[in-house]
Amino acid sequence: MSHEPVVAIAGVTGAVGAEFIATMDRRGFPVRKLKALASARSAGKTIDFRGEKIVIEELTEKSFEGVDIALFSAGAGTSRKFSPAAVRAGAVVIDNSSAFRMDPNVPLVIPEINAARIREHNGIIAVPNCSAITALVPLWPIHKANRIKRVILSTYQAASGGGAAVMQELVESTRAYLDGRPFSPKVIQHPYAFNLFSHNTAIDPETGYNDEETKVIKETRKIFEDDKIAIGVTCVRVPVLRAHCEAITFECENPITEDDVRAILSKAPGVRIVDDRAKNYFPMPIDASGQDDVLVGRIRKDLSDASGHSISMFVSADQLLKGAALNAIQIAELLPQRAMA
Amino acid sequence: MSHEPVVAIAGVTGAVGAEFIATMDRRGFPVRKLKALASARSAGKTIDFRGEKIVIEELTEKSFEGVDIALFSAGAGTSRKFSPAAVRAGAVVIDNSSAFRMDPNVPLVIPEINAARIREHNGIIAVPNCSAITALVPLWPIHKANRIKRVILSTYQAASGGGAAVMQELVESTRAYLDGRPFSPKVIQHPYAFNLFSHNTAIDPETGYNDEETKVIKETRKIFEDDKIAIGVTCVRVPVLRAHCEAITFECENPITEDDVRAILSKAPGVRIVDDRAKNYFPMPIDASGQDDVLVGRIRKDLSDASGHSISMFVSADQLLKGAALNAIQIAELLPQRAMA
Repeated sequence: MSHEPVVAIAGVTGAVGAEFIATMDRRGFPVRKLKALASARSAGKTIDFRGEKIVIEELTEKSFEGVDIALFSAGAGTSRKFSPAAVRAGAVVIDNSSAFRMDPNVPLVIPEINAARIREHNGIIAVPNCSAITALVPLWPIHKANRIKRVILSTYQAASGGGAAVMQELVESTRAYLDGRPFSPKVIQHPYAFNLFSHNTAIDPETGYNDEETKVIKETRKIFEDDKIAIGVTCVRVPVLRAHCEAITFECENPITEDDVRAILSKAPGVRIVDDRAKNYFPMPIDASGQDDVLVGRIRKDLSDASGHSISMFVSADQLLKGAALNAIQIAELLPQRAMA
Repeated sequence: MSHEPVVAIAGVTGAVGAEFIATMDRRGFPVRKLKALASARSAGKTIDFRGEKIVIEELTEKSFEGVDIALFSAGAGTSRKFSPAAVRAGAVVIDNSSAFRMDPNVPLVIPEINAARIREHNGIIAVPNCSAITALVPLWPIHKANRIKRVILSTYQAASGGGAAVMQELVESTRAYLDGRPFSPKVIQHPYAFNLFSHNTAIDPETGYNDEETKVIKETRKIFEDDKIAIGVTCVRVPVLRAHCEAITFECENPITEDDVRAILSKAPGVRIVDDRAKNYFPMPIDASGQDDVLVGRIRKDLSDASGHSISMFVSADQLLKGAALNAIQIAELLPQRAMA
């Protein structure tokens, strides 16, 4: 058992932190020892891991001694501050934040797409943005078969993308609304109960695109290794708890039919087709929640493109799983360090 | 006062029925007498109108004697069944349902776009689908200035589009969810609390488009009197109570900039620009609710079209007002019958 890795989780008390643990358990990921790291506020509390109580330690630069794999999900600032120490200590960092995604020395990996890039890491491997992952898992096998030139997508993003505090705000503000009580938003600028709003990341004053949208565009190009793919994207936060949806229209270099897309996606890893026209049953957040696959449905010709090069579809994926924790654990499973430790 | 019209409302107990009355009040629409019509189930109950209690009568073919204007919002079946009797009795029917919208003898009217068509009616004037109205009020003045060739839009539709029962289901299922109680969907096939789903209208098994989407495509072409405009549309129901949102990307015949669009929309009737990048403040259902205008924001270049012909934007409008009751009352205000009665 000595070749099993020592794993640290930085941000163990967050929404993704909890899913790191649940996902490792569910997939039987071998762990010699787990180090549970969080801010000073949570130090001393415990979490349950495989029948043990593990005491949460404060995340510091000294936290990574003897650690083989460090899973980070505590925001870009924390990743920037503590990842170098983890790498110096010999750990491989799998980072769920945006801190290093566009760094040319850091592989940006969705295992279904570019697992081979994992071997090129210099200590850090980045997990892409959740909206990018949700779109790209089904788009990649299509792109390989018939290059995608243009994508227009609109997101329907869940509270979980903002973390546990945003999920809590959605629940509490909705309860207050139903009880007729006033509620002052705490972590989200806008009222959230039965409301939706443009994604709550900063807007580039010049382009008018928010950071979430810019991430989708840049990360797609890096992961697909295609600088020319044209992407228009609108990111919207909806009052849903934990799975993202996206309405996607894409145009291919050569003609493509909905049957072509169905044939490609029926064999695609990480994809499940949910597309029952007779029953009006398509991907929904409630069905994607807790699932590993990206659900894909509403596969149909884009009626705005008479040339027959464009398809529209609707997808849903668990933002905390494939959009974050699962993608990270899939990367960890492919690390040579896992066996070498 | 004898030239003031006698007005009948068919479907007075519905979500739109209530807004017909509130909108007439708010706009000081003159009414000699109001006939409140509904199904037998509601007959004998009363509603308040300008300080009077009005007894609800059962809607029958005999309901329209002496009626000048009949506002219908009780579903397409009811409109098909009772409109002919209303027309025979000399009333002008303003119909909020889909029953007659595509009938070449029936004007399909958004007053900001094609008020002149009102005069061509043969007894029935149709109010367009709410998703179409929400998109077309801001798209029309752009289309007039620089023909729109192609539109791709995704909707974020509120419960109100399905009527009062769907709004109630959203509230009740959400309350049950928060209380940890089971809830069996009654009027919507899917769980609605913190969930979203593809629009709950029938799907064409061949094309894969649902009725709501087909309406948006066909009605846009009829209202714009442009059979060539190419439209791709995805209609989605979200857990919001009463205002629809839409992410819209459109391509014009000639180059267009976001400043062009802002200049056009700042003078457009029925449109209010809500587009504050610094404050991250854009159209939201909570702000559109109870408002007459279509709110338009996120006006920006579509980054997927390098040619400079495409713009993306995000809009929100009160589905019960501009999407239904207000549009109908605006039509009524323009009727010659109003003065002739």
